[in-house]
Amino acid sequence: MMEPLTDRPLRGDGSVWEKAATCCSSAGLKTLLPILGWLPSYELSWLRMDLIAGITVGLTAVPQGLAYAEVAGLPVQYGLYSAFMGGFVYCIFGTSKDITLGPTAIMSLLCASYVEQDPVYAVLLAFLCGLIQISMAFLRLGFLLDFISYPVIKGFTCAAAITISFGQVKNLLGLQNVSQHFFLQVYDTFRKIPEARVGDVVLGLLCLLSLLGLMLMKRSLEPNPEDLPVCVRLARGLIWGLATVRNALVVISATLVVYSSEAAGHHVFTITGKTSPGLPPVRVPAFSEAMVNGTALSFSDIALDLGGGLAVIPLMGLLESIAIAKAFASQNDYRIDGNQELFAIGLTNLMGSFVSAYPITGSFGRTAVNSQSGVRTPLGGVFTSVIVLLSLAFLTPIFYYIPKASLAAVIICAVAPMFDYGIALKLWRVKRLDLLPFLVTFLVSFWEVQYGIVCGIAISGAMLLYHVARPRLKLRDHGVLVVALDSGLSFPAVEYISRLLYTEALTASPPRSVVLDCRHFSTIDYTVINELQDLLRQFQQCEVSLIFTGVPHTVLEVLLEADLPGLKHMESVEAALQALSASTSCN
Amino acid sequence: MMEPLTDRPLRGDGSVWEKAATCCSSAGLKTLLPILGWLPSYELSWLRMDLIAGITVGLTAVPQGLAYAEVAGLPVQYGLYSAFMGGFVYCIFGTSKDITLGPTAIMSLLCASYVEQDPVYAVLLAFLCGLIQISMAFLRLGFLLDFISYPVIKGFTCAAAITISFGQVKNLLGLQNVSQHFFLQVYDTFRKIPEARVGDVVLGLLCLLSLLGLMLMKRSLEPNPEDLPVCVRLARGLIWGLATVRNALVVISATLVVYSSEAAGHHVFTITGKTSPGLPPVRVPAFSEAMVNGTALSFSDIALDLGGGLAVIPLMGLLESIAIAKAFASQNDYRIDGNQELFAIGLTNLMGSFVSAYPITGSFGRTAVNSQSGVRTPLGGVFTSVIVLLSLAFLTPIFYYIPKASLAAVIICAVAPMFDYGIALKLWRVKRLDLLPFLVTFLVSFWEVQYGIVCGIAISGAMLLYHVARPRLKLRDHGVLVVALDSGLSFPAVEYISRLLYTEALTASPPRSVVLDCRHFSTIDYTVINELQDLLRQFQQCEVSLIFTGVPHTVLEVLLEADLPGLKHMESVEAALQALSASTSCN
Repeated sequence: MMEPLTDRPLRGDGSVWEKAATCCSSAGLKTLLPILGWLPSYELSWLRMDLIAGITVGLTAVPQGLAYAEVAGLPVQYGLYSAFMGGFVYCIFGTSKDITLGPTAIMSLLCASYVEQDPVYAVLLAFLCGLIQISMAFLRLGFLLDFISYPVIKGFTCAAAITISFGQVKNLLGLQNVSQHFFLQVYDTFRKIPEARVGDVVLGLLCLLSLLGLMLMKRSLEPNPEDLPVCVRLARGLIWGLATVRNALVVISATLVVYSSEAAGHHVFTITGKTSPGLPPVRVPAFSEAMVNGTALSFSDIALDLGGGLAVIPLMGLLESIAIAKAFASQNDYRIDGNQELFAIGLTNLMGSFVSAYPITGSFGRTAVNSQSGVRTPLGGVFTSVIVLLSLAFLTPIFYYIPKASLAAVIICAVAPMFDYGIALKLWRVKRLDLLPFLVTFLVSFWEVQYGIVCGIAISGAMLLYHVARPRLKLRDHGVLVVALDSGLSFPAVEYISRLLYTEALTASPPRSVVLDCRHFSTIDYTVINELQDLLRQFQQCEVSLIFTGVPHTVLEVLLEADLPGLKHMESVEAALQALSASTSCN
Repeated sequence: MMEPLTDRPLRGDGSVWEKAATCCSSAGLKTLLPILGWLPSYELSWLRMDLIAGITVGLTAVPQGLAYAEVAGLPVQYGLYSAFMGGFVYCIFGTSKDITLGPTAIMSLLCASYVEQDPVYAVLLAFLCGLIQISMAFLRLGFLLDFISYPVIKGFTCAAAITISFGQVKNLLGLQNVSQHFFLQVYDTFRKIPEARVGDVVLGLLCLLSLLGLMLMKRSLEPNPEDLPVCVRLARGLIWGLATVRNALVVISATLVVYSSEAAGHHVFTITGKTSPGLPPVRVPAFSEAMVNGTALSFSDIALDLGGGLAVIPLMGLLESIAIAKAFASQNDYRIDGNQELFAIGLTNLMGSFVSAYPITGSFGRTAVNSQSGVRTPLGGVFTSVIVLLSLAFLTPIFYYIPKASLAAVIICAVAPMFDYGIALKLWRVKRLDLLPFLVTFLVSFWEVQYGIVCGIAISGAMLLYHVARPRLKLRDHGVLVVALDSGLSFPAVEYISRLLYTEALTASPPRSVVLDCRHFSTIDYTVINELQDLLRQFQQCEVSLIFTGVPHTVLEVLLEADLPGLKHMESVEAALQALSASTSCN
């Protein structure tokens, strides 16, 4: 039961100090190590659910990992290297039962533009990204995400869905030497269509159709009536299971096809080719790199090359994960802790870099599978990690035969649903102005994803600031001028307002008094006070009044402290009008 | 007489289109060419005042121009090249009678860090700066200045006063090879004190004392009683005149001393040395430069070197001029037009670059002299320009003998009063938080003036955005929770608010209804609507109510358009509380 609240003013989230203070209490420890919240009350019946969900997600994670490494421009095994650390770390530090950390389409796309197909860069990026995210968590910078508005997120995901999907068309067609940049890629892909390999096209389309079919079958199962006979229920369960592990199913089948074709001596498919066998080595990430030509790249060279990535990747990693966590938390009715999530992701990246992982974040698709499979606690992630590790330990020789076209089909089916057809219409209908950040983010993202996000944030921010700088106001004429602002008055607006009062009241002949309705003021700053002082002096010179009404208590205190000569304030506009008419009739 | 105003909503300043539309009318033409406003009604009695003021300012402008060129790291004649175009242009396009355009201490300091003592750079910078300012005027970007708050301006001028003054100590002491950067300069200056030249020190201190004495004498004259005998009034007038042209007086006297000493064969003073004789050539600015070593610097090389200067100089030029114009407009009760000022400065820079000028802006000291000398119209500036041109035409041979120590004394006396001792105390007393942008701007400006300004603006902006992102709220408990925000709700705040409502109302047992007082809302965006939708769903799931009260008309329209399921809104908090208690008692 809550304690009764009596006029309690609130502001800001808990600071580092508050957190440090509560950290010694058991509640504080549970905030830092959420596992302590659920493990002691863990029920054995949950284990079954977690095991099923974990294994199901694992069977999706393996083919997706291989595919996303391809998006990032890295050898396929790096996808799996990145896919297992998250399960262990998140189980201890995560605040959502559903979230699955690992390689994702968008993160891989972002990494691709920074790591230049060089695993050394990718691993170092994960290391630095982890460090930055952990520092951000300690500085409680999770609030920075608040400045990424919904239209920007939507613009970015829609553009990413198109960019990533189209980026896989070349693999579906078996094309070689296609540029990485979106516009060149479109040009190259269409130009090279005559070079498409029949084997890849056929296999790719088959994979795509199978995935689509299984997805639609699963969707049609959704309303699950209670009163079905057992055999029907079993059949439905089987289809549900097959549809859920459809990625693994399709990749394995395609790999078998390729294996038999290669064994028979036919080389008609583009295959993954040689990969490093077995588990990744556990070692400190390389901080420099020897080049082919004998020279060495130092840490500072690499850090300089990574450049903006060191700002974009940590923030985007957090953004993606939080966006997903929020979606599922809202669906399953719990709340996540942004800064704790940031810490979990950061630690996963940091520790991942010791096993050759590239930057990871929360995966939308696998989190959805996890949630639908009925996961109860983050323990499910541990089982997912075990599946990935087993694949690495025993299956790497088979990776050689995985056809690239099948991985392309997996990616396309995973990211295409991220494209939200209705969003533009919705924005148009509800809040037309929000189309601007959406469209800018969407369009610029085709050029460079990170610029799209930055432009979108800048435009949303400018729209906010415009509102602060140009509050709407209402002028009413009661003999004296009554001016009401619809929001507070901060320094960017004060010149505008004071010029308006000057022209409307003092340059009129005869000059007129003004009642300024300050009901919606919430703070005041020194620039405003300074300008008001000038304005009051000018009103006094013209021998008319400027009266402030309805000034909130906190603002009034500051105004009185500033000791403005000629400051008059009253409770309400009506009182001010009465006082003014009384003083006029006296004259 | 004004037309009566009836509930007229207002927003934004006049756009380019409005201006274009009004431009054909005579009022519009007067806005574009303010000279049309005052020239037709020019009275002959004004001419005397304008002539006296113009010539007085001219006698200050010549020594200051020579001195500020020194600050900019350019040959002294460039100060005069820059000092005459402003008078002609501003007379036609300016909106303030007092403003005097020309080289200033702060602008020279800023230029010094970009032009690397190379006149070609300086002149090209003026050209580009003019182009940029004119474009800004056409795009009506004058509003950008609104985001530079008073504490930032103060922090910057205080730091500039110290930096510029200290930068002249080396000339006062006759030191050679002192670094340009402030911290190294302090170190070098103190280290080299033993190398000080006695002649320079004595002459410099004498100049300084004379200037100080004349300044104090003038100040003591200020209260001017009416009933004085004619001879006393004449004496006071003489002192006032001498004190007003004190800069010219001191520099001329010092130059005479140096001339006689040099003629006698004693070389005990550091002198200006050889300058180009006569008026500057009229020619298109050089867009490339041949280097000493035979290679050539192309336009793009120079533009790249100028770099950030192309953003900082135009904006700072505008800022300085507007700050001064505002100060005098407020004192003499008129209003200036930011965009028109921007155009006048831009045109002066652009045309100045054809006569080898470096970037100029409004000068605080000379504008004050202009105003005190009783100038009536911008025509005074034309007389100032004529004085500068005459000096260039006939006096350049004499410039050779001007002692650097005397120019240093002129600069120190001009900028020292810009340091505002009381400002920190005032900020502390009235609005403590505004000390932060002030101090950051002040301290960082010692490192690089432009970084100081940028940091200050960034911090003021962050403080604004923090306010938007974390509105203060009041919780009251009436059985149901009543939450009142003290300002509007925009996307950066919505996650914070919705988390708060969730934890305070829905995780309580039993869950409680919430009344959200939206009185202070002024707009709403799609991110907010999206989050409110989630929140409403969660409240419905917990079977409690979330009621919005006092939503302003414009916001309510958007909310209704968004068609949120379960949206309830009422006129007032009281109505909502009654409705809730009625529904509870029914159950």
